[in-house]
Amino acid sequence: MPTDEYDVVVLGAGSGGQPVAEGLAGADQTVALVEEHRVGGECPYVACIPSKALLVAAGHGLGWTEAVQRRDRAAEHRDDSGTAEGVSGAGAALVRGRGRVTGPGELTVGDRRLHWSRALVVATGSSPTRPPVAGLDDLGDALWTSDQALSTHEQPQRLVVLGGGAVGCELGQAFARLGTTVALVEVAPRLLAAEQPFVGEVVAAALSRDGVDVRTGATATSVRRVGAGVVLALDDGSSVSGDRLLLAGGRAPRGAGLGLERLQVEPDDGAVRVDARCRAVDRSGRSRRDVFAVGDVTGVAPFTHTASYQAEIVVAELTGRGRDADYRAVPRVVYTDPSVFAVGATSAPADRADEALAVGGMDLEGTARAFIEQPDPPGRLEVLARRRDRVVVGAAAVGPAAESWGGELALAVRAGLTADLLADHVHPHPGWSEAVHPAALDLIRELDGDGR
Amino acid sequence: MPTDEYDVVVLGAGSGGQPVAEGLAGADQTVALVEEHRVGGECPYVACIPSKALLVAAGHGLGWTEAVQRRDRAAEHRDDSGTAEGVSGAGAALVRGRGRVTGPGELTVGDRRLHWSRALVVATGSSPTRPPVAGLDDLGDALWTSDQALSTHEQPQRLVVLGGGAVGCELGQAFARLGTTVALVEVAPRLLAAEQPFVGEVVAAALSRDGVDVRTGATATSVRRVGAGVVLALDDGSSVSGDRLLLAGGRAPRGAGLGLERLQVEPDDGAVRVDARCRAVDRSGRSRRDVFAVGDVTGVAPFTHTASYQAEIVVAELTGRGRDADYRAVPRVVYTDPSVFAVGATSAPADRADEALAVGGMDLEGTARAFIEQPDPPGRLEVLARRRDRVVVGAAAVGPAAESWGGELALAVRAGLTADLLADHVHPHPGWSEAVHPAALDLIRELDGDGR
Repeated sequence: MPTDEYDVVVLGAGSGGQPVAEGLAGADQTVALVEEHRVGGECPYVACIPSKALLVAAGHGLGWTEAVQRRDRAAEHRDDSGTAEGVSGAGAALVRGRGRVTGPGELTVGDRRLHWSRALVVATGSSPTRPPVAGLDDLGDALWTSDQALSTHEQPQRLVVLGGGAVGCELGQAFARLGTTVALVEVAPRLLAAEQPFVGEVVAAALSRDGVDVRTGATATSVRRVGAGVVLALDDGSSVSGDRLLLAGGRAPRGAGLGLERLQVEPDDGAVRVDARCRAVDRSGRSRRDVFAVGDVTGVAPFTHTASYQAEIVVAELTGRGRDADYRAVPRVVYTDPSVFAVGATSAPADRADEALAVGGMDLEGTARAFIEQPDPPGRLEVLARRRDRVVVGAAAVGPAAESWGGELALAVRAGLTADLLADHVHPHPGWSEAVHPAALDLIRELDGDGR
Repeated sequence: MPTDEYDVVVLGAGSGGQPVAEGLAGADQTVALVEEHRVGGECPYVACIPSKALLVAAGHGLGWTEAVQRRDRAAEHRDDSGTAEGVSGAGAALVRGRGRVTGPGELTVGDRRLHWSRALVVATGSSPTRPPVAGLDDLGDALWTSDQALSTHEQPQRLVVLGGGAVGCELGQAFARLGTTVALVEVAPRLLAAEQPFVGEVVAAALSRDGVDVRTGATATSVRRVGAGVVLALDDGSSVSGDRLLLAGGRAPRGAGLGLERLQVEPDDGAVRVDARCRAVDRSGRSRRDVFAVGDVTGVAPFTHTASYQAEIVVAELTGRGRDADYRAVPRVVYTDPSVFAVGATSAPADRADEALAVGGMDLEGTARAFIEQPDPPGRLEVLARRRDRVVVGAAAVGPAAESWGGELALAVRAGLTADLLADHVHPHPGWSEAVHPAALDLIRELDGDGR
């Protein structure tokens, strides 16, 4: 059994693992990058990139055929050879296959043993979870995850989307705009339930305008195949039917079954817990200096941009420029039209447990830009600050181009700016971001008033 | 001659004067607001609002008739009665007519004398300047300013735009997209000449793509009427012709002829110089406590959002909550497609005179979002920081939605954030703002390298 020696072995070549491998190889470390599926992970082929391509195409009014062509071009036709060449060109050794830790400093991939002298970096991502709906296993090819939804060349006439989070809202809108009859079922009382209530309400209004049958507060109890399609039964006695059922529910970190226990690292519900340097925390609570994790497998914030950021933290740490990660301002964006930009704290009880927050808001309808464009629905913005020091700690915006102009709010959270500074900042007229100013003034009134 | 007594008299009811009057009236001060033309100023009727409405309509592929309908709806059909009612409803006395200072504490409007006990606020805006082109005065109705361009119901077949600043670029693109044959003449070697060179180059490429005949580095020497149209002669011996000539050149502050000398305030080339509280500076260099100026007439930064901001500064000062204005981060936006967002310092010699700056850049072409959307031209971003303390002091972006995602850069300048913090900030994937990260890393490499 051949054995190869490396400074660093990276397990998983997705949005986290690939830049770690390339970054370290560029810093003259020997690196093996192990990948069982596509090099590049899911984002470029069956997630972020093709879904945005589909949304952009649908937003431009293109039809299915052209939209799918654009989707597939953006997704490089799900062919990872170019990305694989990039990895090799950067100087990392690409090892295809499923890796498993088989001893201290040793990862086995098929019949190869890879040894690391400095570090193992776990970057195995996450996998879709299945909701507890009877009959799911019997649907065959009528059951889709986003993989199928973003690979198919055949447009379903009717699509049932199960899950009203970011993926469900984005794909629901894209398919509806491309001509599919879409029903979207969400168990929570509203869409995008983790955000401020107005966010999901505006997105629901937009989806309804696009013809989506939005069913919130609806629990799917069972599903059965009828002919070539499916019928999903809901707990209120009603049902929705379609040609395909798209599971757009949650994802779970993929840290189990990797043999990490041999390194005294015990994944918790699949998540590899990390410290601020992305060092894995072992079962005694100590940070390992030779085991790191990045991306969805850490359970920190399941976004490609979190993975990329953590990759930089790991490369910095392993090249002697270590710094702590700062997750205060990791943005949560939904690329629907109107789009959503959220960051930091929400007004949910969990976010407010430790300290009193004040909230200021502004309906976009009151801006000059909305007067010009008359968007329907117009959207809204809310900003949150701590009462004790007036520092902005969260924000949520939904409206035209919010994915872009919301970025200022993330930087305010990241830099710990006060509501007062935000209110003294000048915004271009007549731009969407002008809504930030009255929201900040409203927030200041709240901060200056009595605590709630 | 009737005399009315007020706490404050505001001269000019545009983007600066109107909010001063409404803000002070809301704080229980007696206010007279004097306006010779339309209440609301130029922005809502013949400037920002109708030009953006036209650009948005043209961007959506609408035809002339519908675009003009949208323009006129957004411009409230150039009828200021609603805005005038708003002023009265806010509790300010609206006085229509031309006002002139006729003594200490006294403004005369027609046959009325208005006395102020606390302050006069000068908010008379700016007026278009005429370039030194022989024959301009003989063009009659073939000569347009933006007023005519944004009021006309008749679409010119051919339009010559003289001036490649923000107004020229915006209106040039709007008319071209609506089907007019447009030539744009700019004396500087590039469009938007006050910004980083790449900005005007990208906008020129976009305008050319839209069919605009872009003539930079071209000095117009004379113009003559030929039939119903015009022929503009350039200094290289060539000429351009059209049905209309649109003057889209500079504007000059409108502070002369108001009688301000009676208050020891001497406008400088029409500009009323102000201190950080928007108090007018008198001829001996002292700040007047009873004379303020806001908006274009101050010569600070000729944008509606500057006027609105200065209005807040004045209202704060006159209601006992005074604070200094901070102009570091007043954005300069051009609402073309692609749009421009610029803020703070540029790499021009004037900006670099006092201290060494480093520049970092990123072509948008390298972002995931550009890979999806393949914009042509793709655009670029540059960020500038002071070498001595690494603080971000300027930025310019041109590309899809730059008007929105560029806002983060303005906040960085306003808050005095370092390049290092900007580089540690997480951007949503795959959004346009992801370009900020590699630009910030490039900037850090420049800062860490030798000074230029």
